[in-house]
Amino acid sequence: MMDRLTHWQVTQGENAMAAPRTISLDAMGGDQGPAIVVPGAALALVRHPDVNFILVGDQARIQPHLEQHPALEARSRIVHTDIAIEMQDKPSQAVRRGRGSSMWLALEAVQKGEAEVAVSAGNTGALMAMAKLVLRTMPGIERPVIAGQWPTVGHNSIVLDLGANIGASARQLADFALMGAAMARALFGIERPRVGLLNIGVEEIKGIEEVRQAHAWLKENELPIDYRGFVEGDQIGQGIVDVVVVEGYAGNIALKTAEGTAKQMAAYVREALTSSLAAKLGALLAERGLRALKDRMDPRRLNGGPFLGLNGIVIKSHGGTDAFGFASAIGVGYDMAESNLIVRLTADLQSLHGKLGETRPPEAKQA
Amino acid sequence: MMDRLTHWQVTQGENAMAAPRTISLDAMGGDQGPAIVVPGAALALVRHPDVNFILVGDQARIQPHLEQHPALEARSRIVHTDIAIEMQDKPSQAVRRGRGSSMWLALEAVQKGEAEVAVSAGNTGALMAMAKLVLRTMPGIERPVIAGQWPTVGHNSIVLDLGANIGASARQLADFALMGAAMARALFGIERPRVGLLNIGVEEIKGIEEVRQAHAWLKENELPIDYRGFVEGDQIGQGIVDVVVVEGYAGNIALKTAEGTAKQMAAYVREALTSSLAAKLGALLAERGLRALKDRMDPRRLNGGPFLGLNGIVIKSHGGTDAFGFASAIGVGYDMAESNLIVRLTADLQSLHGKLGETRPPEAKQA
Repeated sequence: MMDRLTHWQVTQGENAMAAPRTISLDAMGGDQGPAIVVPGAALALVRHPDVNFILVGDQARIQPHLEQHPALEARSRIVHTDIAIEMQDKPSQAVRRGRGSSMWLALEAVQKGEAEVAVSAGNTGALMAMAKLVLRTMPGIERPVIAGQWPTVGHNSIVLDLGANIGASARQLADFALMGAAMARALFGIERPRVGLLNIGVEEIKGIEEVRQAHAWLKENELPIDYRGFVEGDQIGQGIVDVVVVEGYAGNIALKTAEGTAKQMAAYVREALTSSLAAKLGALLAERGLRALKDRMDPRRLNGGPFLGLNGIVIKSHGGTDAFGFASAIGVGYDMAESNLIVRLTADLQSLHGKLGETRPPEAKQA
Repeated sequence: MMDRLTHWQVTQGENAMAAPRTISLDAMGGDQGPAIVVPGAALALVRHPDVNFILVGDQARIQPHLEQHPALEARSRIVHTDIAIEMQDKPSQAVRRGRGSSMWLALEAVQKGEAEVAVSAGNTGALMAMAKLVLRTMPGIERPVIAGQWPTVGHNSIVLDLGANIGASARQLADFALMGAAMARALFGIERPRVGLLNIGVEEIKGIEEVRQAHAWLKENELPIDYRGFVEGDQIGQGIVDVVVVEGYAGNIALKTAEGTAKQMAAYVREALTSSLAAKLGALLAERGLRALKDRMDPRRLNGGPFLGLNGIVIKSHGGTDAFGFASAIGVGYDMAESNLIVRLTADLQSLHGKLGETRPPEAKQA
């Protein structure tokens, strides 16, 4: 374990000195592969002109798109491979036959220190399985989590785990708190992010045992977070904390339910504003405000969910996004690299694990 | 257990014959007690003129409100008590000092066969604890659940458990499916409701063990439901099933998250439609459509969450609702009594438990 950490710290150190930043992209991932990934990278380059890209995939399919973006071409290197992971591939299949695939090589570029961030719009399960194999988990971390941004009435919040694992021990929930805080620091520049544990407030049962235990630890220990205690589902969108911690089953259900509700509301509003000629005229008059609303709700702006707990930055983009959305995912990775997230998070986790010491569950001791 | 069932079936039989229906109301429950409960009952009576009411609580506080509604007064009987459960009381406190309270006596009226339904806007935990003591759970049922209506793009769906318990065994999830189906039959008149199990679709992990096992049972067994398999959080609002089954922790988080998202969206829409003079004019023109939208989203229309799994019908009203909302809760109870829910559900559960027989978990054997 120490070997791994030391090796990793050295390569990370080298990267940190070696401006410009390099980001590797799985060019074959997502519903449309290079047709989205390449123009997405071009958009990201406008926002972050200091980035170099490694585009991994079928050269013959990447090249025509790349030629349309000369500025990007000048800062890109294609790594050719014939192998691509399909969206339907099961993680176990993907891992078996996926060595040498565009997804694998994009991750390997991070492992080798050639890139700081890997971004893929491919199959979530396959990406998670490969990322664990290629980058391995941070010291003391058993399983990585998926984090995401959640729009609130204020700035966005971070919610994790969004479904990488079902269930979480108290210790894992405490780890999630630090991981989410590291992401909030990276994306929003908040030094001591406010963190809440998602819970339910019915009856005397105030949540499951794991949630209670994690609550006690987060309250008692000196940590680089502003721990705010329990939050309930209706408070996520109020933005009263920067980071919401929850195990992956409930987290995924919360995320999907919120997405579904937002779509449902949007359909209702559309219906209300087309229900009569007067309503249509009204909608025309209110067009600018409604357009701002639409922009605000645009899921592409929130695209890019990091896998946290790995020895490297991996960003999962939605498979069906467009170039604008893919550029957002690259942006998330860029911000995380900028904030030196991995070094800081590794230290935070080591400090927490040191404090919890004897309370370590058996599985964490193996890690 | 058989004694209880037989006794109960007899009293239920008597009630079913004895038109008109009688509903007992905890007149002291909720933020405003009789000031909401009495006019709520008056509204419900307009919709269901065959109902008699038992109003339980402080006579001196109930009487002045009742006098303002002569039609209601003619069909009501006040049962006086000085004792009322406070919203802040813990369930254990409420049970200790709450015998003889308005909540207790309203439930007791159902247990004695004097009423078919009890409705309370009081403390959820106290109501649940008392309902278990007074009415006891149905044969083979360990813990009651809270169900609720969820607005969808079609008609409403039923979602349960909304937070009565954390976690659920496979057998309990299967019970929830039948309970929710009974409620859908009562409220929507659907003979074989479509039922889905809430799950997450990430990676190869397709949900927790309990959810998988319940899925297998619901698929294999001949039941009075149209079992549709797994649904995800974003599908609840699409109305693709009539009943969504989930354990109470994730169910409560889903409900609260949806409520929070709906409020957040409403705030965004309000902001968009007041962002400029043109937008305000537009909103005026679209007023009728927007008013219809507001009506559609009105939470008062969905008020009234039944506790299912008890030997009697108990409806929990939101504590902060108004007379219109309280009348909705009474309406839910009325429909459930009309559909002969308890008799039918008891039979459905017995049939399921007979089929599962040997797979019964230890705790169910005790029941």
